[in-house]
Amino acid sequence: MPHQRYNLWTVDFDTPHEAHIHAIKELLHSRRTPYPKIEVVMTYGYGKALILDGRLQSCQRDEYIYHESLAHPVMLSGPGCERVLIIGGGEGSTLREVLRYPSVKEAVMVDIDRDVVEACREHLADFHRGAFDDPRATVIIDDGRDYVKNTAERFDVVIIDISEPTEGGPAYTLYTVEFYALVKDVLKEGGRVVTQACSSSLNVAETFSVICNTVKRVFGSVHPYHCFIPSFGCTWGFAMWADEASEMTSLDVDERLSERGVSGLAFYDGVTNRSLFCLPKDLRAALSREKRVFADENPPRLFR
Amino acid sequence: MPHQRYNLWTVDFDTPHEAHIHAIKELLHSRRTPYPKIEVVMTYGYGKALILDGRLQSCQRDEYIYHESLAHPVMLSGPGCERVLIIGGGEGSTLREVLRYPSVKEAVMVDIDRDVVEACREHLADFHRGAFDDPRATVIIDDGRDYVKNTAERFDVVIIDISEPTEGGPAYTLYTVEFYALVKDVLKEGGRVVTQACSSSLNVAETFSVICNTVKRVFGSVHPYHCFIPSFGCTWGFAMWADEASEMTSLDVDERLSERGVSGLAFYDGVTNRSLFCLPKDLRAALSREKRVFADENPPRLFR
Amino acid sequence: MPHQRYNLWTVDFDTPHEAHIHAIKELLHSRRTPYPKIEVVMTYGYGKALILDGRLQSCQRDEYIYHESLAHPVMLSGPGCERVLIIGGGEGSTLREVLRYPSVKEAVMVDIDRDVVEACREHLADFHRGAFDDPRATVIIDDGRDYVKNTAERFDVVIIDISEPTEGGPAYTLYTVEFYALVKDVLKEGGRVVTQACSSSLNVAETFSVICNTVKRVFGSVHPYHCFIPSFGCTWGFAMWADEASEMTSLDVDERLSERGVSGLAFYDGVTNRSLFCLPKDLRAALSREKRVFADENPPRLFR
Amino acid sequence: MPHQRYNLWTVDFDTPHEAHIHAIKELLHSRRTPYPKIEVVMTYGYGKALILDGRLQSCQRDEYIYHESLAHPVMLSGPGCERVLIIGGGEGSTLREVLRYPSVKEAVMVDIDRDVVEACREHLADFHRGAFDDPRATVIIDDGRDYVKNTAERFDVVIIDISEPTEGGPAYTLYTVEFYALVKDVLKEGGRVVTQACSSSLNVAETFSVICNTVKRVFGSVHPYHCFIPSFGCTWGFAMWADEASEMTSLDVDERLSERGVSGLAFYDGVTNRSLFCLPKDLRAALSREKRVFADENPPRLFR
Repeated sequence: MPHQRYNLWTVDFDTPHEAHIHAIKELLHSRRTPYPKIEVVMTYGYGKALILDGRLQSCQRDEYIYHESLAHPVMLSGPGCERVLIIGGGEGSTLREVLRYPSVKEAVMVDIDRDVVEACREHLADFHRGAFDDPRATVIIDDGRDYVKNTAERFDVVIIDISEPTEGGPAYTLYTVEFYALVKDVLKEGGRVVTQACSSSLNVAETFSVICNTVKRVFGSVHPYHCFIPSFGCTWGFAMWADEASEMTSLDVDERLSERGVSGLAFYDGVTNRSLFCLPKDLRAALSREKRVFADENPPRLFR
Repeated sequence: MPHQRYNLWTVDFDTPHEAHIHAIKELLHSRRTPYPKIEVVMTYGYGKALILDGRLQSCQRDEYIYHESLAHPVMLSGPGCERVLIIGGGEGSTLREVLRYPSVKEAVMVDIDRDVVEACREHLADFHRGAFDDPRATVIIDDGRDYVKNTAERFDVVIIDISEPTEGGPAYTLYTVEFYALVKDVLKEGGRVVTQACSSSLNVAETFSVICNTVKRVFGSVHPYHCFIPSFGCTWGFAMWADEASEMTSLDVDERLSERGVSGLAFYDGVTNRSLFCLPKDLRAALSREKRVFADENPPRLFR
Repeated sequence: MPHQRYNLWTVDFDTPHEAHIHAIKELLHSRRTPYPKIEVVMTYGYGKALILDGRLQSCQRDEYIYHESLAHPVMLSGPGCERVLIIGGGEGSTLREVLRYPSVKEAVMVDIDRDVVEACREHLADFHRGAFDDPRATVIIDDGRDYVKNTAERFDVVIIDISEPTEGGPAYTLYTVEFYALVKDVLKEGGRVVTQACSSSLNVAETFSVICNTVKRVFGSVHPYHCFIPSFGCTWGFAMWADEASEMTSLDVDERLSERGVSGLAFYDGVTNRSLFCLPKDLRAALSREKRVFADENPPRLFR
Repeated sequence: MPHQRYNLWTVDFDTPHEAHIHAIKELLHSRRTPYPKIEVVMTYGYGKALILDGRLQSCQRDEYIYHESLAHPVMLSGPGCERVLIIGGGEGSTLREVLRYPSVKEAVMVDIDRDVVEACREHLADFHRGAFDDPRATVIIDDGRDYVKNTAERFDVVIIDISEPTEGGPAYTLYTVEFYALVKDVLKEGGRVVTQACSSSLNVAETFSVICNTVKRVFGSVHPYHCFIPSFGCTWGFAMWADEASEMTSLDVDERLSERGVSGLAFYDGVTNRSLFCLPKDLRAALSREKRVFADENPPRLFR
């Protein structure tokens, strides 16, 4: 429909009546079954992109924004940590961020979909940058919920980096009070947790606010935050829980990054951390009104 | 923009303000340089499709309509023939139709783009159905104009099966009086010629009418005809020249197909032949008003 | 830049995975309730267009193709006629074509939707060209099925010019054996009937073939035909029944048009009539295989 | 089926290879000439929307985000003010925000396009909410540059609320060092200035960074800030200059809003103010690298 120069487009619906469209240069990889459909494409604007079941997951040119925002606040909001669990995280980018911390002795990544992980490993080297080959990394193909239910391992930090809760989708059961209770059980003392929490754009922010409230129900409190992701065309929410006060000042953040030997970040630092946690008034109001939680009996969904 | 179930679409512009869009299941092959960009995709509605520089060339499910319409009228409009020249025809489907005639001893196909021919040969077996392997087939990678200028070969039938005359495109010089004069020189006595002639849909039919008039200028007369191609969303024109009257009756066509041993056609027969050559009044009027010809000094273009 | 020239588009889905899109210059009229949604827009390519519930109904620049094809074959396939019934026909264009015949004493148009008729009368003067004001025209707002059930009037020709049989749509009950039986009852001796019969493009032609078979079931025979409509991007089917053989030659058609005082046609004449009735082999095959009929118990639908 | 629900779409290009699309319910107003093309439409997701020359300007459901972000930081970053100049601001929403301050004695709005102002006044009552009728409001139809060049009036605050610098567009000359120098001359002592500064989304943020640098060149310093606007699908930048330090704390902002009698804000408060001015590391880096300025000799443009 749009510019005549480009004939292939990917259409990413935010709601049934709104979408973001990107021109595609090349399709590098596609797998149609089983669910979800996997596509790795080359876009004109954002380099390589991973698309799962028609939804853009991350793009080469701006994935650092999402992955730094997901990993660093929770890594810094407490003492230095040795053992990290990543649930999901197929691209390997969250693994990459976690492995920036020299204190980390083991990072266990549990992803349900071997094909997604392998497609990323093969086609998205610009994303994982070798993280899968780090001797501290362990990749397990398993359902995240089964893993936390059955494992005897304990972790300082758990990072939940999964796709949206579309009905019947692979991450469907990983947004509930029942799941978070299992996650709580695998935390070491002083442990903390973060989950991606879907778009925080006001027109669709109900999913974000229910996830935040669900985390709060289980852990007693929640630190919601968000960042803007250009290729998504929206702000993206996260819900963190940490025992220690999350109100790190800019200086605290910059000092800890330095003390802990983390370098090479493009998006995250002390001032950025402040931008993440300062939510605007309307979004704060929406979060404070939220009473619902996701549970096995009230399963997660995308409000649109 | 469109249906939420499908995220990849190809957009095919008929004019700057109109397009046909198809959902894409998979991209099977793509080559971006040199010009033209080649894509072989799997559509939901029409099976495999060949797209050159963003323009749909033919689809698995309805390519027989175009290729039967291109090949059979000219093959039948005269005595049985032994030697056929195809200019263009990368998919191998025109070759396939020509080789249905047992009388054909050699079919020479001259296409400028080795990559297009190889992509079709590899990915579009449903199209060529082995025609490239027929011992009567000879494929030459060469510019069609150079070939007819230099060859000492003579042919009973010449079929010009090339892409649209986009400026700077590979087929740019193959719609002119100069080119048709060279084609005339390679015809044997009783020889005849057909060229694809772009959309005959009235909103863009100027290209068709100028091509028809150009053929007429060189050969003295022209038989314009057209058929509807579902995946293109428009009728497609052809310009034929044959010494013998083209006004074969339905019975003539059916008899000749039978006498010449041609079978297995899905679209073309006597009644279909009549539908091809009966142009509606408005299109006949447009053709009869046409005074322009394409020539090296007035190069071909797509009127839109 | 071309992509900035057009920001408003209308998307017309042929199937869930295919659509035709048109850039819109201006929206001239819109009514959202009750069903169907009415829009009169100015396009860049085809002038004014009537859109009902998102489906293009007819465009200023090429509506003559549809309306001449609908009206003239049935008007000519029998003796000159005095009384014509049009079911549907909101634009007034079918009325316009019927009133070209000086022999017509009364044309009764029965349309269910007063708002559609009034919107057309006000905004589509280029379509009806004053037909509504002709003293021979009578417009009745009523359900077509109720009208033919209850009227005592009898007609030489009945023309059914209604929208597609979308479930719950206004024309839903006007494609069934029950309805055609009622239509048969209002025909005078020597009377004949035609109905629009949806797209005949092979990928969606099942609706066309079932309608044809339904007409045949009630009337004993049917004359299917079709024409290509540029703004629709497809061929459009019609199903006619006439006692007299429909196999008028080109000469017959041209003579009758002349004898009956019909002039000013842009699309239809003897040769065009031949193009309408010569269906290609694949479509003939599909029609001949069709066994289904639409009935109140097997209600009409769009096969896609 | 969802794909049939929406047929009219507006396509808003961020770059030639990316766009945001919105389904349109109704077109409420359109004017095609002279430039710019004006459209007021009803969207499904964001209520009424103003579109100028194909670019979304503001939507009913989220325009408060843009307009509160534009007006309040500059209004609060200094002593209470009496006289405000708005350049542009056709919707009347900036006027509405300024008039929330009881201290304001006159707000002069200078917009070049009478048709835009009248269309907004008539169709966008939900936006201006009667601001045009406030006795403290003065609307002048004039070129903003001519106005500041010629007026003898002086202002406490100048707010530049104009469309993007598209070549030949109405706001083309209002982003240059020459223009800002004229603006500086109409400031009272202690006066301050803000301008909208285009998207701050990293893929297109060059325009933002050059505008910021241009403000800095003229005024000696600049306070860049931005907010996310859902209907635009991007963050939007602003460039403010104020003599007083802009580093108001959250508490300062909330106190000043209260002291100055401003109420009813949906987006802006102390915490939101912090979110506006905390730019992420990558954007800060881009701004700090910027050396270019827009000037009459190096005219503004949209980098894409």
